[in-house]
Amino acid sequence: MPVNPNANIEITAFRWVPEFAQGVVRDLRARWALEEAGLDYKVRLLDQQRPAEYLQEQPFDQVPVFSDGTVHIFESGAIVQYLGEKSEALLPRDPQGKYRAITWTYAALNSCEPAILNLLLIDVFYKDEEWAKLRRAGAEDFVKLKLKRLSAWLGDKQWLEGDRFTIGDLVMVTVLRFLRHTDLVAQFPNLDAFVKRGEARPAFQRALNDQLATFRENQPEGVAA
Amino acid sequence: MPVNPNANIEITAFRWVPEFAQGVVRDLRARWALEEAGLDYKVRLLDQQRPAEYLQEQPFDQVPVFSDGTVHIFESGAIVQYLGEKSEALLPRDPQGKYRAITWTYAALNSCEPAILNLLLIDVFYKDEEWAKLRRAGAEDFVKLKLKRLSAWLGDKQWLEGDRFTIGDLVMVTVLRFLRHTDLVAQFPNLDAFVKRGEARPAFQRALNDQLATFRENQPEGVAA
Repeated sequence: MPVNPNANIEITAFRWVPEFAQGVVRDLRARWALEEAGLDYKVRLLDQQRPAEYLQEQPFDQVPVFSDGTVHIFESGAIVQYLGEKSEALLPRDPQGKYRAITWTYAALNSCEPAILNLLLIDVFYKDEEWAKLRRAGAEDFVKLKLKRLSAWLGDKQWLEGDRFTIGDLVMVTVLRFLRHTDLVAQFPNLDAFVKRGEARPAFQRALNDQLATFRENQPEGVAA
Repeated sequence: MPVNPNANIEITAFRWVPEFAQGVVRDLRARWALEEAGLDYKVRLLDQQRPAEYLQEQPFDQVPVFSDGTVHIFESGAIVQYLGEKSEALLPRDPQGKYRAITWTYAALNSCEPAILNLLLIDVFYKDEEWAKLRRAGAEDFVKLKLKRLSAWLGDKQWLEGDRFTIGDLVMVTVLRFLRHTDLVAQFPNLDAFVKRGEARPAFQRALNDQLATFRENQPEGVAA
């Protein structure tokens, strides 16, 4: 159980978030990578209203921030990559294997996530706005194009580069999980199996459970769980 | 002049693109990093209609793809980082310096570019659509929030982490250049100076000129330059 109040590694996470975000907040990526690497960590919890000084650690006011006494960094992509350099379980050591994994980490965050998050925001934050109603079909088509391309690449491989799980798979699974409120991933059976394969990993389960346990413990009174 | 038909390193780029994209296509990032590192490269030019096999190299059908006989990778973020590992001119060697630069590369591509590209697409591709007219003000506000946060971080520093230029600055400058059709960056004088500082680097100038020279040479007849 790597959550350990005496650990050297610290990440930031939210004390509580609304239900649509529970289980997909980005500290999940850091927790999952830490679990895969078998590294203990502690969590510094933040309220939704972060202190102004937090911008000096994370200029965009997001979670997670990561520190271990050697580096003090942000961006979940950078954090999982740093953990990959610490643990071969996350990142191959040969140049091609290493940089294919890093390629997929960037692909998940830049070639896939923007389209997917755009649809999530339309469905959650902007659903009553006229522009969102007019735009939704086009935004969904763009997500489907990304999924089609990703599905064609994956084919019958277990992970994005074959038999070996890397940080690229870890980040891509968490990106695809932003579509859990839709059936879009299920329309691509190999992507659906890919996500389920990621979610079935014990390290993912521990990471998810630890994120959700914090939200349960800090559930505000009078707000539906 | 690192463009060299006999180089080991090869990148892909487009033979020609419409004017709004000239000077911001993502092979510019790879060219710039190669110039900063002093590495020769050759260019494999692609038509707008890419061959179907290209998806086996770049599953999302974009440029650039990079190969050097050791790695064969895509995603401009991964490519500039790989070049950073080859050249200390792009990426510090101490863990904190290295991972701060990598943090900013991810921040540029995941915390900034999606908001900025969204506005560019609204202004270029979707400007006549009703949803785009209704959404534009909100999309611009979101870009301004990102710029405000980035400007507050940068302060009076020369580069994002101080005096030393890294891949994080290289990618961030190219992201901010996607706003060149607006005055949004100019509203933040320190960001404006940051972009101009990047553009003034001789390596950037060579990279930009080489991308634009290809488009001039391949200008289709009957299309305004």
